[in-house]
Amino acid sequence: MITYVNPAGSMELLSQLEVDQLKQAASGATYQLFRNCSLAVLNCGSHTDSSKEILEKNRSFDINVIRRERGVKLELFNPPASAFVDGELIRGIQEHLFSVLRDILYVSNRMDADSTLNLTSSVHVTNWIFSILRNARVIRSGEEPNLVVCWGGHSINPTEYQYTREVGSELGLRELNICTGCGPGAMEGPMKGAAVGHSKQRYHQGRFLGLTEPSIIAAEPPNPIVTELVIMPDIEKRLEAFVRLGHGIIIFPGGVGTAEELLYILGIRMHPANAHQPMPLILTGPKESADYFETLDHFIRQTLGEEATRHYQIIIDNAVAVAQTMKQAMPKVREHRKATGDAYSFNWSLKIEPEFQLPFEPDHDSMAGLNLHWEQPPEQLAANLRRAFSGIVAGNVKEGGLRAIERHGPFQLHGDKALMKLIDKLLKNFVAQGRMKLPGSEYIPCYEIIR
Amino acid sequence: MITYVNPAGSMELLSQLEVDQLKQAASGATYQLFRNCSLAVLNCGSHTDSSKEILEKNRSFDINVIRRERGVKLELFNPPASAFVDGELIRGIQEHLFSVLRDILYVSNRMDADSTLNLTSSVHVTNWIFSILRNARVIRSGEEPNLVVCWGGHSINPTEYQYTREVGSELGLRELNICTGCGPGAMEGPMKGAAVGHSKQRYHQGRFLGLTEPSIIAAEPPNPIVTELVIMPDIEKRLEAFVRLGHGIIIFPGGVGTAEELLYILGIRMHPANAHQPMPLILTGPKESADYFETLDHFIRQTLGEEATRHYQIIIDNAVAVAQTMKQAMPKVREHRKATGDAYSFNWSLKIEPEFQLPFEPDHDSMAGLNLHWEQPPEQLAANLRRAFSGIVAGNVKEGGLRAIERHGPFQLHGDKALMKLIDKLLKNFVAQGRMKLPGSEYIPCYEIIR
Amino acid sequence: MITYVNPAGSMELLSQLEVDQLKQAASGATYQLFRNCSLAVLNCGSHTDSSKEILEKNRSFDINVIRRERGVKLELFNPPASAFVDGELIRGIQEHLFSVLRDILYVSNRMDADSTLNLTSSVHVTNWIFSILRNARVIRSGEEPNLVVCWGGHSINPTEYQYTREVGSELGLRELNICTGCGPGAMEGPMKGAAVGHSKQRYHQGRFLGLTEPSIIAAEPPNPIVTELVIMPDIEKRLEAFVRLGHGIIIFPGGVGTAEELLYILGIRMHPANAHQPMPLILTGPKESADYFETLDHFIRQTLGEEATRHYQIIIDNAVAVAQTMKQAMPKVREHRKATGDAYSFNWSLKIEPEFQLPFEPDHDSMAGLNLHWEQPPEQLAANLRRAFSGIVAGNVKEGGLRAIERHGPFQLHGDKALMKLIDKLLKNFVAQGRMKLPGSEYIPCYEIIR
Amino acid sequence: MITYVNPAGSMELLSQLEVDQLKQAASGATYQLFRNCSLAVLNCGSHTDSSKEILEKNRSFDINVIRRERGVKLELFNPPASAFVDGELIRGIQEHLFSVLRDILYVSNRMDADSTLNLTSSVHVTNWIFSILRNARVIRSGEEPNLVVCWGGHSINPTEYQYTREVGSELGLRELNICTGCGPGAMEGPMKGAAVGHSKQRYHQGRFLGLTEPSIIAAEPPNPIVTELVIMPDIEKRLEAFVRLGHGIIIFPGGVGTAEELLYILGIRMHPANAHQPMPLILTGPKESADYFETLDHFIRQTLGEEATRHYQIIIDNAVAVAQTMKQAMPKVREHRKATGDAYSFNWSLKIEPEFQLPFEPDHDSMAGLNLHWEQPPEQLAANLRRAFSGIVAGNVKEGGLRAIERHGPFQLHGDKALMKLIDKLLKNFVAQGRMKLPGSEYIPCYEIIR
Repeated sequence: MITYVNPAGSMELLSQLEVDQLKQAASGATYQLFRNCSLAVLNCGSHTDSSKEILEKNRSFDINVIRRERGVKLELFNPPASAFVDGELIRGIQEHLFSVLRDILYVSNRMDADSTLNLTSSVHVTNWIFSILRNARVIRSGEEPNLVVCWGGHSINPTEYQYTREVGSELGLRELNICTGCGPGAMEGPMKGAAVGHSKQRYHQGRFLGLTEPSIIAAEPPNPIVTELVIMPDIEKRLEAFVRLGHGIIIFPGGVGTAEELLYILGIRMHPANAHQPMPLILTGPKESADYFETLDHFIRQTLGEEATRHYQIIIDNAVAVAQTMKQAMPKVREHRKATGDAYSFNWSLKIEPEFQLPFEPDHDSMAGLNLHWEQPPEQLAANLRRAFSGIVAGNVKEGGLRAIERHGPFQLHGDKALMKLIDKLLKNFVAQGRMKLPGSEYIPCYEIIR
Repeated sequence: MITYVNPAGSMELLSQLEVDQLKQAASGATYQLFRNCSLAVLNCGSHTDSSKEILEKNRSFDINVIRRERGVKLELFNPPASAFVDGELIRGIQEHLFSVLRDILYVSNRMDADSTLNLTSSVHVTNWIFSILRNARVIRSGEEPNLVVCWGGHSINPTEYQYTREVGSELGLRELNICTGCGPGAMEGPMKGAAVGHSKQRYHQGRFLGLTEPSIIAAEPPNPIVTELVIMPDIEKRLEAFVRLGHGIIIFPGGVGTAEELLYILGIRMHPANAHQPMPLILTGPKESADYFETLDHFIRQTLGEEATRHYQIIIDNAVAVAQTMKQAMPKVREHRKATGDAYSFNWSLKIEPEFQLPFEPDHDSMAGLNLHWEQPPEQLAANLRRAFSGIVAGNVKEGGLRAIERHGPFQLHGDKALMKLIDKLLKNFVAQGRMKLPGSEYIPCYEIIR
Repeated sequence: MITYVNPAGSMELLSQLEVDQLKQAASGATYQLFRNCSLAVLNCGSHTDSSKEILEKNRSFDINVIRRERGVKLELFNPPASAFVDGELIRGIQEHLFSVLRDILYVSNRMDADSTLNLTSSVHVTNWIFSILRNARVIRSGEEPNLVVCWGGHSINPTEYQYTREVGSELGLRELNICTGCGPGAMEGPMKGAAVGHSKQRYHQGRFLGLTEPSIIAAEPPNPIVTELVIMPDIEKRLEAFVRLGHGIIIFPGGVGTAEELLYILGIRMHPANAHQPMPLILTGPKESADYFETLDHFIRQTLGEEATRHYQIIIDNAVAVAQTMKQAMPKVREHRKATGDAYSFNWSLKIEPEFQLPFEPDHDSMAGLNLHWEQPPEQLAANLRRAFSGIVAGNVKEGGLRAIERHGPFQLHGDKALMKLIDKLLKNFVAQGRMKLPGSEYIPCYEIIR
Repeated sequence: MITYVNPAGSMELLSQLEVDQLKQAASGATYQLFRNCSLAVLNCGSHTDSSKEILEKNRSFDINVIRRERGVKLELFNPPASAFVDGELIRGIQEHLFSVLRDILYVSNRMDADSTLNLTSSVHVTNWIFSILRNARVIRSGEEPNLVVCWGGHSINPTEYQYTREVGSELGLRELNICTGCGPGAMEGPMKGAAVGHSKQRYHQGRFLGLTEPSIIAAEPPNPIVTELVIMPDIEKRLEAFVRLGHGIIIFPGGVGTAEELLYILGIRMHPANAHQPMPLILTGPKESADYFETLDHFIRQTLGEEATRHYQIIIDNAVAVAQTMKQAMPKVREHRKATGDAYSFNWSLKIEPEFQLPFEPDHDSMAGLNLHWEQPPEQLAANLRRAFSGIVAGNVKEGGLRAIERHGPFQLHGDKALMKLIDKLLKNFVAQGRMKLPGSEYIPCYEIIR
């Protein structure tokens, strides 16, 4: 079965040269990446989230970029049937497909062509992130601060999932918009809840932003209710996009990825230059998840110190209070942006150090070489712990990480005994609570704590 | 607690005389009706649907119409807290509140003032229904046929409810809109499903029409996702509004009210003048409900004859097929309206006989007097059976009916032995399947079959 | 040549009964009125404004109301070619045609049907005017005060016309909207100027309201740039509509009709109940017209007293100052409406006495019977002078007036000698300056001043 | 007086790096160009079009680019008062100001940064033009062909001007949009006429595109009714933008610039690859201008041959016929684009040879070296004649050309005797009719015909 798909969104107007470049890129080195991300997006309707299963089930799937005088077209061979309704591609999926084309091929072409770009410079990285988001039409002038970032695990239990919906509903009733990593679980619940809240308030400007990255999109396929999908180049740029776009952050229960996110934001919030940044940060879950947050809170206290806990608030089992806190913070965010002349839609003035920006490539060497000792400022310890957790996420679910573990055994983490013990305890907790992987498979740790 | 509410929708522009008339009406004979309907709308967030419970819980609730130079305002005393978010009335509920004001007070005032109106004339009844719907801004020129009426019970089991959502989702994916009686159960599921379908298709013209009537609104409070709420004067006008507005009809499992609806539409469809009206009529449910439709189908065959079954189609456990059938019928509806010069948004040419239009007031006399014998044309038998079931609905849940049963015992139905047996069997079936009332209470029949 | 025209605007949704009533009305007593108003609207493109010429040139023109299931259609026989572009009726003219249908037939039908309406009651008159304007969708909630009424002659010289355009341009640059009597001259120039001003400011909410009446529409055919046309039943209701809709008034040079308008607004402004109404009233023209305003000002001083001149401001040859004065007054209007709870779009609280509301039918008796003596409060003198000038307008250009003059000779005005002298002087001035009729014909007075 | 102006349009969202680059460019080599173009745009309200006068009158004018966290701001010192209303910059002028910033600075920055761009390649030139137009948001997908390019002189007589308005009005009544060089005369009249036509048809998608270039903008300042202004880098790219954007072309009377445009389009239309391109080309004017077109027609016949006249149509004094011809051609344009898969909004498939694309820099050497002999294919002769006329335009009004003439005397044109005679005659005709310069100054030829 062959299907042709017309572009949607910002890909509607391409020059012929741009289309030629896309064609080349799509059949060259990035082909595999482009194909797999496209497949992930087309697969959203399916009921599995094992990327291996998806890829094997759809071996005969192929995708080509076609040039028409009028612009670009996509040619799909054997796309998953679930993406279609009576032979027509679901419009939301069509948009996501062109988000993939835009972000995987177009953005990288632009990056190649732009001779002035220097991605080891902190300033350039931030400007580059802005350019990607603007190209995706995600940044808009003239909108009031109202975007709440929701982080949390893709594998959460039904009680937790229901709670994320309730929080979403209360946020939606207060006309707040949602930004998540756009996978299942805590990334989906708040959007579904907010959609109902918006509809009850007749709020028609509802936005559901999904920020993902190529190495995770297959495991966390975006739901078509995501109104704007952006595929950032890597996890570090994705995290920076979250914190510069969002006006407040909620952290639901999750696994090691969620811990990575918490360490990332704390490392930034603790920077003295960011002392006056109003950006509410709430850790929340149903009463059944109270222990989870106690563990996390304890870990932060022991590693980053009492000081770090000033930057977040834990609210247990109170969706209304969470939403009210967010809503009440928005005028303060607005005031601060106005006073400092910063944009409402992109937080230029937030200081992010290069150690949080430069990509960390987890492998056995880099993981073993991480500095996990007490003798460093808390922000740097946060940065290194962030990297350690990022590496474990890779070892758990990302293709490259899985392959490395297969060949060389688990990653080895070295450091101070007491610190290693804390890490060990936290991770074992995640394993025991089934937060490392989706239910149905036994978890074999991809790491070893070497004390 | 006192709250003032500004008008929304068509009540924004009233002359001072009109406001004075509203004030008078609101404090006069219709006050109780107006108050109770308003309370029903404000109570949508609560988790009970016993109108008695609602009324008792909110005894201190009061509502006044206030005149401002600028127009009208509502004054609420002790409204239910669930209608508010941080002190602000939810916008969808605000709209519904003014739908009540508009339809209960304004429409009846207009009716009093219009000296030319004659509600015993079939033509006048239809024109009056048109006027009410137009005044509610529900009729729009320039829209393609796409409105699917969904009928079915307020008390359905979780499997059936889930199925109504699936059908709604498939309708929504095909950019069809939904019109229901706007209570819970089969009246809510299709809307919730369609909302998700619309959002996946980026379809922003989604409409969720709710048609209710004063005597049922408390028992079936409208969900705020209903985008347009109309309170028709009585069940007969509500049924006529359904069939003139809708472009296709789906019947989900339900109780005696659903049977009433099926008999109503069959009585109309069987009229020779309507032979060429394209209006798909589908009876559908999950495979677990197959028996239910077999029973209903059998009853129709035995009472109205084989001929009657030509007018509907039973589809079991296939939400996609239901939605596809509806979607494919829309161009035919459009063609027929165009060919006959009829409006797309109101089916003027559908012939409805006075026996289906004139209000039937169920009491012991009128119920006992119903002609339930074979010796009449099938359309008339359909009309009389419709009245019988309508009376039982009243006896089950409506205030007037309940009071009559309390005083004088069950309604008595007389007629041909065989016919009475068929009715008895059908009703017993409904009782056995728990379709008469919401779960939690034993059902005591409000009728006796006299053979 | 026969053409069929589909409805536009509020006539798109009519019930079948309403269409039947329109058909009857259109072929009955009001047929001639309906036909002639329709012809006037269709003739806007022509370069004559003699209604007699228009009527004679288009003797074969005919119009019918046709009923379709879908609603109403108009059937035109031999309509003027200038109303069409390549066989298609110009959309602006189509809208005006249905404004005629709406206001001439529909409104009067409603008036007949409404048994509660009492047009000798001041309150009812105002409410009825509101109903007509609302039915024409001219009243909108949620808009800020920004509507400037421009009065002035249909027969003005090119310098004056150019000046009205300049004032319009400056009003448009300040995002103010225009309301006029929608004929040529001072009724057209401000709209044309404002259209350019709006376009330079990218102001897309521009409104050009035209208020006319059946007896004047043929002599002052509405230009298609009028975005909203309303045909009020008579001159008194038209004047009341102007002052309740507008947020400020500009008077350009004009003839006896303009004098009528000035006396009308002064009579109202001088009422003690209106003392605190902020409503800027500016008399303005090019420097060549300075004398004109001096004459008018003198007349007001002498007749209504020094006090009356407090209510207006004369600005000569300064379009920018006129527009600035209007713009600066708008926040005051807004504040006053807000403080008194009055609507922004309809000035309910302005007190208008019945003597300014009840229709004055000018004939030889009523003109001769006017009380034109000093011994009355200035507002009443203003009312009577207004009637006198209104009668002269009728005698000059309206069909009924012209016929009466033909039969019985000029109207005779009786009163105090000094007062009569003032009137005489003013009128002679108008005659001398060619303001009574369009150039090309000698003016023969339709009145006699009896001292 | 200092004023700060916020961005409008596509400059609202700039990264901080982009703003820094703008700041640098604005204070560097391109400063003078940027300043003068900005001044031209701000001066639209003035009543002179001598760029020298404008520059001298506004010597104290200065402009700076300011960086804010939020983006960019412009700082204006002593801007012309006519650009403001009550202290606020007119919105249309604000947009034009940011069009200058966008096209003069931003586009050139992008050009510098893009290492892949090669402006000697025909393909690259076309793609670059597309990029500039897309960046200006002038190219839109999903619009039907409806854009009429109007060429003609900036110095035309009042009869001709009035005629261009009439043609514009008839185009506007047919819902066609206008694209011109956006100066006065024949570039302004059609837009003003079309604005009225659109308003009569309630056509709200009216577009008035102005394409200009830095060396001409001061002499032909854009009127604020131009809704989209683009400053193309040079005359060749401006001409290519016209023919790829437009769906039909009208040529009104004009001088040597108009002759340049006619030769340009004929050179392209005569290319065999463009044989099947439907693109109506109409030469039109009032009956008083019939001679003008006869002269032009004669010149084309004699130089390019009979064949060339197949590509245009002369219509004298018939605005309706001109507009009808354009309107009727639009479905053919649409069909052709659809059949060839070309975009509706940009004519990719039109073949333009490099000799029409590569910039011609007129100086004494290049003018003297032009091949003006018969022995070349007609398209090449057209290209060389186009260059000759382009050089004369420069010598007449552009700054560089004027300076060269001052220093070295008139340009000298060499070639075949008969051909030179034809050129001489045509140019003398233009001189005699006052089409070389605005009235008020004697024309001293900037060229010599050497036979």
